[in-house]
Amino acid sequence: MNKNLRSLIFFTVLSLSSVIASAQNKIVVFQSDFGLKDGAVSAMKGVSMGVSTDLKLFDLTHEIPAYNIWEASYRLEQTVRYWPAGTVFVSVVDPGVGTARKSVVLKTKSGHFIVTPDNGTLTLVAESLGIDEIRSIDEEVNRRKDSKKSYTFHGRDVYAFTAARLAAGVITFEQVGPLLPKQVVSIPYQQAVLAGKAIKGDIPVLDVQYGNVWTNIPQTLFDQLQPKYGDIVHVIIRYKDKQIYKGDMPYSQTFGGVAEGKPLAYINSLLQLSFAINMGDFGKIYHVESGADWSVEVSLN
Amino acid sequence: MNKNLRSLIFFTVLSLSSVIASAQNKIVVFQSDFGLKDGAVSAMKGVSMGVSTDLKLFDLTHEIPAYNIWEASYRLEQTVRYWPAGTVFVSVVDPGVGTARKSVVLKTKSGHFIVTPDNGTLTLVAESLGIDEIRSIDEEVNRRKDSKKSYTFHGRDVYAFTAARLAAGVITFEQVGPLLPKQVVSIPYQQAVLAGKAIKGDIPVLDVQYGNVWTNIPQTLFDQLQPKYGDIVHVIIRYKDKQIYKGDMPYSQTFGGVAEGKPLAYINSLLQLSFAINMGDFGKIYHVESGADWSVEVSLN
Amino acid sequence: MNKNLRSLIFFTVLSLSSVIASAQNKIVVFQSDFGLKDGAVSAMKGVSMGVSTDLKLFDLTHEIPAYNIWEASYRLEQTVRYWPAGTVFVSVVDPGVGTARKSVVLKTKSGHFIVTPDNGTLTLVAESLGIDEIRSIDEEVNRRKDSKKSYTFHGRDVYAFTAARLAAGVITFEQVGPLLPKQVVSIPYQQAVLAGKAIKGDIPVLDVQYGNVWTNIPQTLFDQLQPKYGDIVHVIIRYKDKQIYKGDMPYSQTFGGVAEGKPLAYINSLLQLSFAINMGDFGKIYHVESGADWSVEVSLN
Repeated sequence: MNKNLRSLIFFTVLSLSSVIASAQNKIVVFQSDFGLKDGAVSAMKGVSMGVSTDLKLFDLTHEIPAYNIWEASYRLEQTVRYWPAGTVFVSVVDPGVGTARKSVVLKTKSGHFIVTPDNGTLTLVAESLGIDEIRSIDEEVNRRKDSKKSYTFHGRDVYAFTAARLAAGVITFEQVGPLLPKQVVSIPYQQAVLAGKAIKGDIPVLDVQYGNVWTNIPQTLFDQLQPKYGDIVHVIIRYKDKQIYKGDMPYSQTFGGVAEGKPLAYINSLLQLSFAINMGDFGKIYHVESGADWSVEVSLN
Repeated sequence: MNKNLRSLIFFTVLSLSSVIASAQNKIVVFQSDFGLKDGAVSAMKGVSMGVSTDLKLFDLTHEIPAYNIWEASYRLEQTVRYWPAGTVFVSVVDPGVGTARKSVVLKTKSGHFIVTPDNGTLTLVAESLGIDEIRSIDEEVNRRKDSKKSYTFHGRDVYAFTAARLAAGVITFEQVGPLLPKQVVSIPYQQAVLAGKAIKGDIPVLDVQYGNVWTNIPQTLFDQLQPKYGDIVHVIIRYKDKQIYKGDMPYSQTFGGVAEGKPLAYINSLLQLSFAINMGDFGKIYHVESGADWSVEVSLN
Repeated sequence: MNKNLRSLIFFTVLSLSSVIASAQNKIVVFQSDFGLKDGAVSAMKGVSMGVSTDLKLFDLTHEIPAYNIWEASYRLEQTVRYWPAGTVFVSVVDPGVGTARKSVVLKTKSGHFIVTPDNGTLTLVAESLGIDEIRSIDEEVNRRKDSKKSYTFHGRDVYAFTAARLAAGVITFEQVGPLLPKQVVSIPYQQAVLAGKAIKGDIPVLDVQYGNVWTNIPQTLFDQLQPKYGDIVHVIIRYKDKQIYKGDMPYSQTFGGVAEGKPLAYINSLLQLSFAINMGDFGKIYHVESGADWSVEVSLN
């Protein structure tokens, strides 16, 4: 066996093992409020492919309402945990672009990486998945060559570029930049709590495609009311101090458990209490929306 | 040549040949009515990447109108045949989620796999591509670990998970679950027929981006009227018993064959008779929609 | 070391080096006006995967307004340069499908390939990236088998098929078809010019997600007015001869440099002069749209 051949195979084995040993897995998942009508998302992916054509690029969503940092935070919370550890996320909802907000990479305790402006986007995943380390992106090193004249597209020139380099193993997590204190900018919101015989919580988001109303009340907390399928749930929904909806509905295991057009309470795919109308749009019919100002109160008989 | 090296190469060769020999081709194509605004599609892909990072993941569409099983069936019919044999499709339009509808994998005679609730979604591909085998998904085995508490996201926990395992070769088609009789739940619809000097058919779908009206009348049937380019086609379109449109238009090989704003009859990319307005929107202008209740009748002079 | 083993490794090394030596890089990026609601884009990708499962397929956008060739040209201009050399683009905005317009592949001087009808789509990239060679697609060879009966989906049967074969190295650029003269069909538009103390230009496109107004005035031209951050810019926007907007705004390095709801002039991510409202939609508020008929005039004090 000649020397070149030996080197080739050695190099191949080395490559394989370095992939296996590496914390990163060559997967990058993009989220933004850019929409899909122009070339912005594609430019971010092009820059990533320029770093390494071995990367696998995916989307979370690019339909975050413009500047809605809360929803960016919620979509990460809804999705990150279903991807393998080592996946690198890029989230660019960045109304403060070009101002003093920090550009960071969070490594969660679950081994996921999130590249984002630290503007509240990390509120929910930092709580739920835990902060392993946070590093500030050193833009002297981690910035696309020749991009210094452009002040407004950090998504492409810093975030996508850094995420691609991290995911591909061109840089280690340490090479992102200096370590920061283990805290992120957080958006205040109402936690779910048991208050006597009722549970209070908020409506972080609607299930937009169907109009289902998702609360932040986990099944484990709701179970303290000892609900059985078929029990009637009393629901009050408020926007700030104003009552928007008051009604009763059965607690149901499935949508098909009530007639078409009838409301039900159920546990959604994130294991949180939710309200829906079978084959209908709860949000639209009852004018219910979502966000920090939307609260909910539920009780059984 | 040392033993480890020999094993490495043997393993590599084995991997290559098993890929070549396998019926599946590591490609998964997703369809749903989830839309692209939240994290649902991304969670399905994350679960798939957790099964194997060698998979190649694509989308058919996620903009199926909510609960519209007919359109899900039509989009598969329009698309599946253009993908290589061995491709695994996941279609999740599932108003009956959590009820007794079966979760199945269809293997077509063309060698494509479709993972879906058996609720009518398979109507058209079962007819056109043929049923090689259908298997019921054994959810005791083919279900994402720790997902049993969640009753409402079969798309992620069963369908995407099973499709990924099948596409990656983690399971064989036999390991999906028990064999079922060779029949699927079918949605009744009007077949295209020659009736004297006219042809009757229906409007399964609009070409939504342009408003062109697509019928289910194949070119081969229309050719029995012996049309020549330039011949005038008489067209009547009805919703149930009500006449919605009646008009004449030339049979044209290209859109440019008529003036801007003028209607034409043509053969679309699926080789079916269709109606359009050059540079205009036939559906919007004449209030024509699609579905089982929309019928069409065409004749020449 | 036995002969088969030697062959295997030789073949592997050969494959690797042929990939490295090839001008193409196995990446295909798709653009169209098809939207994402039906199976058209997916069929194009299926055909591509049928050519080679080694390809990496991406999207630029499929939300080009129907038949808007100018915007197709602009999205390529905005995006192509951020992808690595060797990337193959497919752009299908093709109101003249089936008529005599030529089907071509442009190789730019930057080493990018663009597969498209030559109908104006190449206007801007031909200018900015330069024409290395243009070839006419020989449809006798470069057309999906069994597709000759279908007259209306060149995107799938010719463009996607040819792009996939080119990107995968199944054909060389020479095998696309015969060489054409180095010129493309161009859409006339107002170039940016210095006129006394003012600069005139046009509004090629809006930043659709946010409503920012992008001009074709490059930073280098604007710099000839010697602007400093904070200087007031006088802006007049016209549709044909009619004045639509007249106003003053500061030249700002960042959106955060003005109060919420206030206008600013800034340099966008393509290094061109643009107008925005901090946290607002300039286009919608002032009824400004884009295209060849929209002109702009700017001056300092």
